Amino acid sequence: MVKPLILLSNDDGVSASGLKALITMLSPLGDLFVIAPDKSRSGASHSLTVSDTVKVAKIKESENLSIYSCSGTPADCVKLATSCLLPHLPDLMISGINHGSNSSVSVIYSGTMGAAIEASMLGIPAIGFSLCDHSLDADFSASIKYGRIIVEKLLNIGMPNNISLNINIPPLPQDKIKGIKICRQNKGMWDENFEKETDPLTGEETYRLSGYYLNEEPEAEGTDETALKNGYISVVPVHFDLTAYSNMEQMKYMETFFN
Amino acid sequence: MVKPLILLSNDDGVSASGLKALITMLSPLGDLFVIAPDKSRSGASHSLTVSDTVKVAKIKESENLSIYSCSGTPADCVKLATSCLLPHLPDLMISGINHGSNSSVSVIYSGTMGAAIEASMLGIPAIGFSLCDHSLDADFSASIKYGRIIVEKLLNIGMPNNISLNINIPPLPQDKIKGIKICRQNKGMWDENFEKETDPLTGEETYRLSGYYLNEEPEAEGTDETALKNGYISVVPVHFDLTAYSNMEQMKYMETFFN
Repeated sequence: MVKPLILLSNDDGVSASGLKALITMLSPLGDLFVIAPDKSRSGASHSLTVSDTVKVAKIKESENLSIYSCSGTPADCVKLATSCLLPHLPDLMISGINHGSNSSVSVIYSGTMGAAIEASMLGIPAIGFSLCDHSLDADFSASIKYGRIIVEKLLNIGMPNNISLNINIPPLPQDKIKGIKICRQNKGMWDENFEKETDPLTGEETYRLSGYYLNEEPEAEGTDETALKNGYISVVPVHFDLTAYSNMEQMKYMETFFN
Repeated sequence: MVKPLILLSNDDGVSASGLKALITMLSPLGDLFVIAPDKSRSGASHSLTVSDTVKVAKIKESENLSIYSCSGTPADCVKLATSCLLPHLPDLMISGINHGSNSSVSVIYSGTMGAAIEASMLGIPAIGFSLCDHSLDADFSASIKYGRIIVEKLLNIGMPNNISLNINIPPLPQDKIKGIKICRQNKGMWDENFEKETDPLTGEETYRLSGYYLNEEPEAEGTDETALKNGYISVVPVHFDLTAYSNMEQMKYMETFFN
């Protein structure tokens, strides 16, 4: 039996422990092809390298597991794998495991989800996994266990190839995780500020991003934030049609602007 | 009467002629505050600089027109302006004029739209303008004329502050542009490949992105691609809720995976 070919990437970089956990999760399920940024690309969103060339380095190559690093972005990694490095399109693309939540509007900024969305745009079923724990020594054991069940079942049942799944895992021990909820993206925003710093060497003023998440509907049902708060793994199906259909009729008045 | 405060940015960089055209378009309509990347950030999408600091340089400061450059991304520019540089939130944020189309799925990759979407996430009505002409000496005169009418009317009538408008202008002389169409995002994809190059100096192999746009519904009505093809300015209202609502019911079977 031919094993499924699974493409892996992330945005925390090829040496991140979340990527190692993803390899552990998926090794029993298929042949793995990994291509990930050579450094952290957290916050890379769906960016592509269009004004420069990109370098690729082979780290490991075997029948069941190949690992490459790339100087580009997570979305670059997916395009590189599918256009240059793989013999055929993968059966599944999986991104992560991200160190930290990508729930709510973080999906917009996330390089992890940028890679997954790119794969779905190419017609490849895709999943981004994130563990809601930023720490470097985060415990990925529950993510490995439940992620493997999810991927195994999706490989058997199939999933739509024009969406990706934004899967966030609460930072809980295995036996405290209550199950899975299919959710919508929570309404919220990052109340972020750039704060001024003075470079100690040059005296130059620079700015550094910092901020906190503001949940605009903390009591809402059916959102990813609420599912996570209640101990569930949140799954948001994600598409790439940004049209605000509910505002189209309202904006029709613009069609008279040149009359 | 207090003039509106309009925040400007782009992804082609602070010295792009499309940004100069945008300043010309908007100067009669308000006080302009410009902050744009110090180099081209085409393809930056919604990326943020999270692992490094960002530098800001003042280029010009006057009552009606201030111009800053920034080492970060277009979305960084919007966050910097609103959190550090402006006395209060702007009445409107306008990004562009992009050198080249941002219709269809290009909205996902576009740094121009990354800045506009970021502004809408902060509750600021926002517009991204793109001229469907990549050339450096593109003629922005029709964009300036019609863009000014659009912005002046929107400042008077108002527009929702939780969406942005992805406005693309066909590369036609003023008198050939037929009007405005409110559209949905066309279904299509970039059939892109990374192509291998050999660095002439080092002999090192690198990869460069190239590709072409594949329209998956060339005859569809109501899309931005069709409007542009027929000589209209296309306006797609854009939101930042990526939930694929139409797939939620279908994916409910995942909730039984751990049973």
